[in-house]
Amino acid sequence: MGRGALLLLLLALLAPGAAVLLRPALRTLGSLHLPTNPTSRPALANNYSILYFEQKVDHFGFTLMKTFKQRYLISDKHWRKDGGSILFYTGNEGDIVWFCNNTGFMWDVAEELKAMLVFAEHRYYGESLPFGASSFKDSRHLNFLTSEQALADFAELIKHLKRTIPGAENQPVIALGGSYGGMLAAWFRMKYPHVVVGALAASAPIWQFEDLVPCEAFMKIVTTDFRKSSPGCPESIRRSWGAINRLSTTKGGLQWLTETLRLCDPLTSSDIRRLKDWISETWVNLAMVDYPYASDFLQPLPAWPIQVVCQYLKDPNVSDSLLLQNIFQALNVYYNYSGQAKCLNISETTTSNLGSLGWSYQACTEIVMPFCTNGIDDMFEPHLWNLKEFSDDCFKQWGVRPRPSWITTMYGGKNISSHSNIVFSNGELDPWSGGGVTKDITDTLVAITISEGAHHLDLRANNEYDPASVLLARTLELRYMKRWIRDFYDSLQMRH
Amino acid sequence: MGRGALLLLLLALLAPGAAVLLRPALRTLGSLHLPTNPTSRPALANNYSILYFEQKVDHFGFTLMKTFKQRYLISDKHWRKDGGSILFYTGNEGDIVWFCNNTGFMWDVAEELKAMLVFAEHRYYGESLPFGASSFKDSRHLNFLTSEQALADFAELIKHLKRTIPGAENQPVIALGGSYGGMLAAWFRMKYPHVVVGALAASAPIWQFEDLVPCEAFMKIVTTDFRKSSPGCPESIRRSWGAINRLSTTKGGLQWLTETLRLCDPLTSSDIRRLKDWISETWVNLAMVDYPYASDFLQPLPAWPIQVVCQYLKDPNVSDSLLLQNIFQALNVYYNYSGQAKCLNISETTTSNLGSLGWSYQACTEIVMPFCTNGIDDMFEPHLWNLKEFSDDCFKQWGVRPRPSWITTMYGGKNISSHSNIVFSNGELDPWSGGGVTKDITDTLVAITISEGAHHLDLRANNEYDPASVLLARTLELRYMKRWIRDFYDSLQMRH
Repeated sequence: MGRGALLLLLLALLAPGAAVLLRPALRTLGSLHLPTNPTSRPALANNYSILYFEQKVDHFGFTLMKTFKQRYLISDKHWRKDGGSILFYTGNEGDIVWFCNNTGFMWDVAEELKAMLVFAEHRYYGESLPFGASSFKDSRHLNFLTSEQALADFAELIKHLKRTIPGAENQPVIALGGSYGGMLAAWFRMKYPHVVVGALAASAPIWQFEDLVPCEAFMKIVTTDFRKSSPGCPESIRRSWGAINRLSTTKGGLQWLTETLRLCDPLTSSDIRRLKDWISETWVNLAMVDYPYASDFLQPLPAWPIQVVCQYLKDPNVSDSLLLQNIFQALNVYYNYSGQAKCLNISETTTSNLGSLGWSYQACTEIVMPFCTNGIDDMFEPHLWNLKEFSDDCFKQWGVRPRPSWITTMYGGKNISSHSNIVFSNGELDPWSGGGVTKDITDTLVAITISEGAHHLDLRANNEYDPASVLLARTLELRYMKRWIRDFYDSLQMRH
Repeated sequence: MGRGALLLLLLALLAPGAAVLLRPALRTLGSLHLPTNPTSRPALANNYSILYFEQKVDHFGFTLMKTFKQRYLISDKHWRKDGGSILFYTGNEGDIVWFCNNTGFMWDVAEELKAMLVFAEHRYYGESLPFGASSFKDSRHLNFLTSEQALADFAELIKHLKRTIPGAENQPVIALGGSYGGMLAAWFRMKYPHVVVGALAASAPIWQFEDLVPCEAFMKIVTTDFRKSSPGCPESIRRSWGAINRLSTTKGGLQWLTETLRLCDPLTSSDIRRLKDWISETWVNLAMVDYPYASDFLQPLPAWPIQVVCQYLKDPNVSDSLLLQNIFQALNVYYNYSGQAKCLNISETTTSNLGSLGWSYQACTEIVMPFCTNGIDDMFEPHLWNLKEFSDDCFKQWGVRPRPSWITTMYGGKNISSHSNIVFSNGELDPWSGGGVTKDITDTLVAITISEGAHHLDLRANNEYDPASVLLARTLELRYMKRWIRDFYDSLQMRH
């Protein structure tokens, strides 16, 4: 992989309201367990039914008649046949139970919207595997892993629900999703406006493609997040790369690094790229989950974790060895807040809740997101976006080549003003906001900015430590959803 | 095929501004030649360039990397870089040169709109064959013949033109099409509103699916067209089926029928279904091309051909033999107006300009249009729509089964009010208007009805015998196109 790793790794997106994971395409991270959400209701898991719907593997061709079972979760506790609605989570790259348990916002508004909640699993993730255990075998089996097929699954599933649940037929459906799920929610409204009356696309970087936004934007925001704690913090990180480079030129230096960073496996000089990518990824993760309250997804993390991390990195003007000792302290906040870890592993696999294989394939085909750094406006080593190298890596791994402009052809890029009823929410702390819609496009394509929000904080359950900005965002989101529902019923009445 | 033939045969759509063809799925019709359009400019064929664009065979998967050459025609005679526009014909099921030469409307308005004209050939038709001579070999090769792939071709082609033709990038593109091409134009605007600012969908039966319109509507309109000439005319035709049935019970009767109808091959009792389907198809064709002036597409036809045909069918109260002699006279108007035909052939192949194989596959997969007759409100033998039988026939022929509700899932059925800038035009004489949009849906989804129009008369070149209703329709269409172009430039200016 060489230097492509950092960029590939940045392609990964976060699970809504949950993970501190970047799912790296070709390397992995952290020792993860099924996350438990301390703020969700204790018996939440009992509140939904798990169901399966028979989907065509290929919606866009007629030769392959094979079907598979798509998993979805449904909760009708607060649903009312009279004047109710359906909130439909457009599942993204992971286990849908995990998304369901970590999208507290939907549970919080269900009663007020008299809403049925549906969480649809994305094909090739969780249990929804088109070819079972062979689903990731080769590019032939992966051929049906695209956003278009996923959207068609959602459309067919909603048709099925309306056909089979008495009272559901004449109710408005709203799509909701975060991160890649937010992109899907927005795209779903764009492509199937006859199926959903509106979409809440939380932290959805729909413009992180081609040159729609500068490829530097993402890492600049990460850097800004660290700079807010103290100006010395990003400067320490920027200097750490040179320090690592200098130390890694000798055997003694490598050994010192291994011990200082408490790494599980001894470093060799060929590991240095991976080490630096792994550290970079940690800073990125922290920026994404810089939440205002303690959370325990990957590991237990304190409230505002970047502030805690930056306590160790205030002073950049220290020796290489002291700097890297400080870096270790900072990493330790993220990887060992509980104090249980014996050592840090730079190549551990990611949580089984997120489908890293599937995502790696998607990043190598449709979801081609350019990232770059220049080392000046950001705290990382300079790195250009190299499509050729990226494409060759993809071809080596999957036997496919990315089509970087396809998403723009399909979903319109910045030219989306003819659509309607989409709320794009973004947290200003979230690096993904750099590829998101952060200004109103029209009266009905609106942007909500959450100044104190990290990655789709708004989709998370209500929490006593929520800042005012996310409370306001949720209030606005609820208001838009109510408007879409009212408009639906008004036009229904006009037709009768 | 049995009794499914008539219904399958009705699935075929007409080429814009041109053909008198129903492309039957499993049987064919008429002795066709490359039509010459007497009303088009003599040197029209010299006014465009023929070009080819490399398209992915599969836009929706990444395994198959194969490409093919899509043919398109382009004329920039009237195009202006300053304030110009691009009129894009969304090619349907046939040779694009033929469509180009028979869509005079685009040529007539090019100068006023400073428009570049582009005619894009639909994959699997004309020269645009994804697998060359093997394209129709089996369902595996036909797998990429769908409306979704065709729309993606159009989007990619327009992107290519904007990228490569200096001055084209910041110009509005309008989609135009007739019949299935009109459906594609409308769907293109719905699915790719970022690519085309509006669409003129002429005689596009986008609702001829599932139960969106009564399956009887189509044949009722055919019948009404004949009734307008004289009430006895449809009654004669209705009685003719019984007469044929009675005569075909004996050998002598079959021989008499063969001679009276001047058939090329002697009838056997097993041909009777085909004979009646062929005759029915003739009446349908006449309804579609009941144009106000002489045309010579299939065969030379007089102006208002149904009036001419019905002269022979005024009196239904005659003997079986006289009735069928009259039917022959009527058929002879259609098949032998020139007086050149020595005999009539009920199983001749259709024009090579229309891809009957491709269409048969499309009718067996996505474009599943239910038709039926009851023999009371229409002049045909009663026939129910039988999906099971239809599906079995498709499986026998192509190894695929239709998905009758897919088009509605994909394109929204009657629930399309959130879209904008589509003009649906329909001729009241055209049986396809029964499946078309004939009432305004919103201010920007508008219906234009042409009271004296048959199948997309409005797309044909200006003609001195054009009735006032089609002149008005074209005026309105031009006005809408100008508005879309103006809105495009207005919003472009606002952005700068």
